[in-house]
Amino acid sequence: MPFSAIVASLPQRVHVIGTGLIGTSIALVLARRGVELTLADASPTGAALAADLSGGRVSTPASPDLVVVATPPDVTAEVIATALADFPSAVVTDVASVKAVIRAELTRGGVEGLDRYVGGHPMAGRERSGAIAARGDLFEGRPWVVTVGPETSRAAVSLVKGVAEAAGSVVAILSPQEHDEAVAAVSHVPQIAASLVAARLRDLPESAVALSGQGVRDVTRIAASDPRLWTQILAGNAPAVATVLRDVASDLERVVAALESLGPQPSGDVVAPGARATLAGVIQEGNHGHDRIPGKHGAAPMRYAKIIVLIPDTPGQLGRLFNDVGQAGINLEELVLEHALGAQVGRLELSVMPAVAAELETVLTARGWRLHS
Amino acid sequence: MPFSAIVASLPQRVHVIGTGLIGTSIALVLARRGVELTLADASPTGAALAADLSGGRVSTPASPDLVVVATPPDVTAEVIATALADFPSAVVTDVASVKAVIRAELTRGGVEGLDRYVGGHPMAGRERSGAIAARGDLFEGRPWVVTVGPETSRAAVSLVKGVAEAAGSVVAILSPQEHDEAVAAVSHVPQIAASLVAARLRDLPESAVALSGQGVRDVTRIAASDPRLWTQILAGNAPAVATVLRDVASDLERVVAALESLGPQPSGDVVAPGARATLAGVIQEGNHGHDRIPGKHGAAPMRYAKIIVLIPDTPGQLGRLFNDVGQAGINLEELVLEHALGAQVGRLELSVMPAVAAELETVLTARGWRLHS
Repeated sequence: MPFSAIVASLPQRVHVIGTGLIGTSIALVLARRGVELTLADASPTGAALAADLSGGRVSTPASPDLVVVATPPDVTAEVIATALADFPSAVVTDVASVKAVIRAELTRGGVEGLDRYVGGHPMAGRERSGAIAARGDLFEGRPWVVTVGPETSRAAVSLVKGVAEAAGSVVAILSPQEHDEAVAAVSHVPQIAASLVAARLRDLPESAVALSGQGVRDVTRIAASDPRLWTQILAGNAPAVATVLRDVASDLERVVAALESLGPQPSGDVVAPGARATLAGVIQEGNHGHDRIPGKHGAAPMRYAKIIVLIPDTPGQLGRLFNDVGQAGINLEELVLEHALGAQVGRLELSVMPAVAAELETVLTARGWRLHS
Repeated sequence: MPFSAIVASLPQRVHVIGTGLIGTSIALVLARRGVELTLADASPTGAALAADLSGGRVSTPASPDLVVVATPPDVTAEVIATALADFPSAVVTDVASVKAVIRAELTRGGVEGLDRYVGGHPMAGRERSGAIAARGDLFEGRPWVVTVGPETSRAAVSLVKGVAEAAGSVVAILSPQEHDEAVAAVSHVPQIAASLVAARLRDLPESAVALSGQGVRDVTRIAASDPRLWTQILAGNAPAVATVLRDVASDLERVVAALESLGPQPSGDVVAPGARATLAGVIQEGNHGHDRIPGKHGAAPMRYAKIIVLIPDTPGQLGRLFNDVGQAGINLEELVLEHALGAQVGRLELSVMPAVAAELETVLTARGWRLHS
């Protein structure tokens, strides 16, 4: 049976080791489902807080069905190995954001019972950390990657899938290598690009950063991320990230060479027509990659129709606007509110299915809204 | 008198050459102010459409106060030179998104009357092009850079400032070089970074792009841009863009070297502690650059409190939510709606001033909304 066909089954007795944001959020999900829950953490007060929040007990269980290792990534492999030995009939999973390095460490250590280990990566946000920030709905609608190897038992995958589905996640089954290569491209490399672009703003004059528009804001939003967390993540996925970054660096070299050949020429003429083709080619390759990002609800990418509404900067205006949209029975796909430099008016970008765009424009105009389109 | 102290004065007779999106939008602004408007375009039907939209006349005026050159960037310098000669008492401005190359071309050509030329760059979006997409409010709240040299007349700057302010823009006065260096860092380099990151998604398996979250979506949003337009922009600002990109490339090399030294070691040990410091340093430099981007209303950057609300994916929900927010008298600073992979629920991120965050949480919870925070 392929892993993708395995039916989820909810474990009955779960032991969660590590009661930070992710571990405690998983505990909240399981408690809600009536699972018998035990908790452990290096910090006794941390574990006690998680127990208070979830209704679980701080103790070492006799025979859990599943052990969830939700410790910091640098000790995850060691804690998994201990759990496999301590609980010889339990399935063990983890939540670390890199997977191949953990598997390599377990294999290298000659750990027994690897058929009972299933890697996991619930891809949920972490604006805050710690048990106190935990939420039972943290994983809703988020991907939860389950990683498997040739030796992984189907029954083990079924239990981990059960937890992920109870959390409202969308399960994706990959090999550790596939997972790490995927997150290198869709998460780790974008993080580095955002940081490098943002770093160039450090020494700009005030008058230059004042020209920042929505483009640079979007590109650099994640540059506000935590350096310690990201150092662990990047170091744990070093080979896959380096592979993608070398391709980025090679494209970047081509762009710099093209720009240098287009620089001011003594004659004022353009002497390198091939350079323009290089620049156009790079932007076009970006178009093609961008088109592959899935749209809403995991569906195929789709270009929504965009309508820009000018919103006076006073309370209640958005309520009035969305009432008007709601009464028209139109569903918004995406929306972004932007305040431009020095403006006393907000620009709200509404994305809707192309088929209803004209109707929405008519409705909003009739209600007195000022539109761009 | 410094250029920044010059008082704006609205011209009385304006000739707009080039009636695309930007030229026609400027015409709409001026027509609304009762300015006597003449229009010209290489395409007679394009000019006629702009005249119909704005109420201007397609003709060559006797003695305009101001000529606005809004042609494609590659012919802008030539059209400016002709306008300075044809209208010897008029001020001439343009709207091209790169400025030093135009000035260099005019100087090299020995053009007379450069004291009457003032560079301009209204930084407005261009989702659609052509006169038909023009809007009188296109420039509202957007920066309009005015570029000057030592020979530029104060009276000339006053007229261009008059147009920019009539359009609702925020005027920034810079030298052509300062402008080009600023847009290289805050616009052109972010564009290239977005394209290069997006290009790496082209050959990913479907299961990998399915893991795309909000981070990669933000970083690559502008990768959907038009290759032809961007080739002109990048080629026109080649030296300034190359300078910033060389710094990015050098940072990128350091990151790749650090990752390679962290790659799987035979012993499993980390052999390069300095490599982790490099990674943390790069993320930290990004933090510092990101902190410099101005917040709402051009004020100093500020970290808003963020509240995440889960929104059922049906029409009318946003209206209900924003009514609740509006009735509480709370002003939203930013908002972003995200739909995660496969989810039937949207995640709406509300940013508010930290002082009102607790109140907003209380209000929304009381009204039955499901919050993350």
